[in-house]
Amino acid sequence: MDRPRFVIEAAEAKSMAQKAGLTLHQLLPTLVKPAQTLARPPISKFHVGAVGLGSSGRIFMGVNMEFPGVPLNQSIHAEQFLITNLVLNAEPHLRYFAVSAAPCGHCRQFLQEIRNATHIKLTITETDCDCEPKYQHLSHFLPDRFGPDDLLDKDVPLLLETHQNGLKFNGYPQNIICNGNGQIPEKLKLAALDAANKSHAPYSKCPSGVALMDCEGKFYQGSYMESAAYNPSLGPVQAALVAYVAGGGGGYERIVAAVLVEMEGVVVRQQHTVKSLLEEISPKCEFHLFYCVQDFNVSR
Amino acid sequence: MDRPRFVIEAAEAKSMAQKAGLTLHQLLPTLVKPAQTLARPPISKFHVGAVGLGSSGRIFMGVNMEFPGVPLNQSIHAEQFLITNLVLNAEPHLRYFAVSAAPCGHCRQFLQEIRNATHIKLTITETDCDCEPKYQHLSHFLPDRFGPDDLLDKDVPLLLETHQNGLKFNGYPQNIICNGNGQIPEKLKLAALDAANKSHAPYSKCPSGVALMDCEGKFYQGSYMESAAYNPSLGPVQAALVAYVAGGGGGYERIVAAVLVEMEGVVVRQQHTVKSLLEEISPKCEFHLFYCVQDFNVSR
Ligand SMILES: [Zn+2]
Ligand SMILES: [Zn+2]
Repeated sequence: MDRPRFVIEAAEAKSMAQKAGLTLHQLLPTLVKPAQTLARPPISKFHVGAVGLGSSGRIFMGVNMEFPGVPLNQSIHAEQFLITNLVLNAEPHLRYFAVSAAPCGHCRQFLQEIRNATHIKLTITETDCDCEPKYQHLSHFLPDRFGPDDLLDKDVPLLLETHQNGLKFNGYPQNIICNGNGQIPEKLKLAALDAANKSHAPYSKCPSGVALMDCEGKFYQGSYMESAAYNPSLGPVQAALVAYVAGGGGGYERIVAAVLVEMEGVVVRQQHTVKSLLEEISPKCEFHLFYCVQDFNVSR
Repeated sequence: MDRPRFVIEAAEAKSMAQKAGLTLHQLLPTLVKPAQTLARPPISKFHVGAVGLGSSGRIFMGVNMEFPGVPLNQSIHAEQFLITNLVLNAEPHLRYFAVSAAPCGHCRQFLQEIRNATHIKLTITETDCDCEPKYQHLSHFLPDRFGPDDLLDKDVPLLLETHQNGLKFNGYPQNIICNGNGQIPEKLKLAALDAANKSHAPYSKCPSGVALMDCEGKFYQGSYMESAAYNPSLGPVQAALVAYVAGGGGGYERIVAAVLVEMEGVVVRQQHTVKSLLEEISPKCEFHLFYCVQDFNVSR
């Protein structure tokens, strides 16, 4: 088998299933073990893989990531990686997914940010025999849920839907440098602003975005994604690190520059957390913070 | 009604129930609304109250707490406050609890750290009529759970059980001051070490503790508490802030000194997160970090 990738195009997925004599949702569990090999859990050594089928027919992988030196709530679970992977690829919906271990409560909650989340079907491969995978609705795994419905109007965009937060730089040249010499490509700054504009932050109304650059000059964007339950929210640097791993990024020391874009003086600020994580995983990475403002003429 | 307190002694709870013609578990939902008034949610303005009955017959309150200026995963949910309150009062088990809103997945996961967690019974008051409260087992709310059983031997102490981590200061005078002039009472340092010794960190094996001192010289201790699912873990400063609020502490600006005790160079380190939270909520608070080492002769 080839080294597993993080996205399989619809045509290829279909042909893989046909070759194996399986339907697409029967194919997913067979891809979990290869996905697990891509996990980066240096603390737990517990490799989790999640493989999802989107409404486009594409297949997406997710793996867990852990970061030594910071609190465990900066970890990324395989299910969160999977969802971030869908966001990165503008996939409108998740239909089915197979995961190697029982999803934790934190992930069951994070998944609620998808519209009609209760209809997503999932199967746990470690408890399965080799027979037909047994998919159950997410509503089985989190009954009597707390979710976006409890807090948001129906017309507010949810996690896999289009966001345009109407953010722009605040006019005066601002460049709060936390590390490094201040040389940062203008395009990286714009990539972070773009990520902030796609951020899902309907609860705090404090969107943010991160863009990373590796030593070859390649960019990786991540948008902050909020949960109705607050704590399971995924930070912008975590989302960008998902993009880095899914995009073929190697060791974190290859990340040479990072830009965070967020609003000034608001109630949710990512700056210290992003900085302390980057300092641990990529000590030589240059880190810049730029503030933005919300222009309600362009936001929705 | 008197201003609600965070612990009601067993005899008083019994007499309150008798006066109202209720059993103890029927009494819990009637205490949820007064508990909600004690919440500190400046971001969401969403007041959550949780009221639990311990095996000693005592009743414990929990409320949610949110902290402007830092990421939302530093928030404390009412159910986590409740459990921390039990820990602070050395309560060996939680039997029943009533909570104002559906517990989120993050909390359902955190609760799994209690032995036989699946048997804890809970009721959600907002969905109840005035009739008999309907309690259901926690296993109903998190079926097919991921939990301590998946990772730990049976004889490892769980969350409400006695911990003795065998930590001591590492011999040479060490005093890493992040703020302030270096004057810190020796007793506060020992209180933080004591909290670290009670920390529940069986997954990372990186226990930690915080002790806070208010302007009247009163101490508040908090032990780091880990979750098998990593992200729902409660940080040591969060636990100490629960002690502060439950102990009658007022505004956070009254916190004048804080000590964190953790091990040097280990995979989970709380220092940057504790520092950035304290700087936001209590900018004048003096913050000190002391390293400890584990002495396996005294640990269990
Ligand atoms: Zn999870
Ligand atoms: Zn919760």
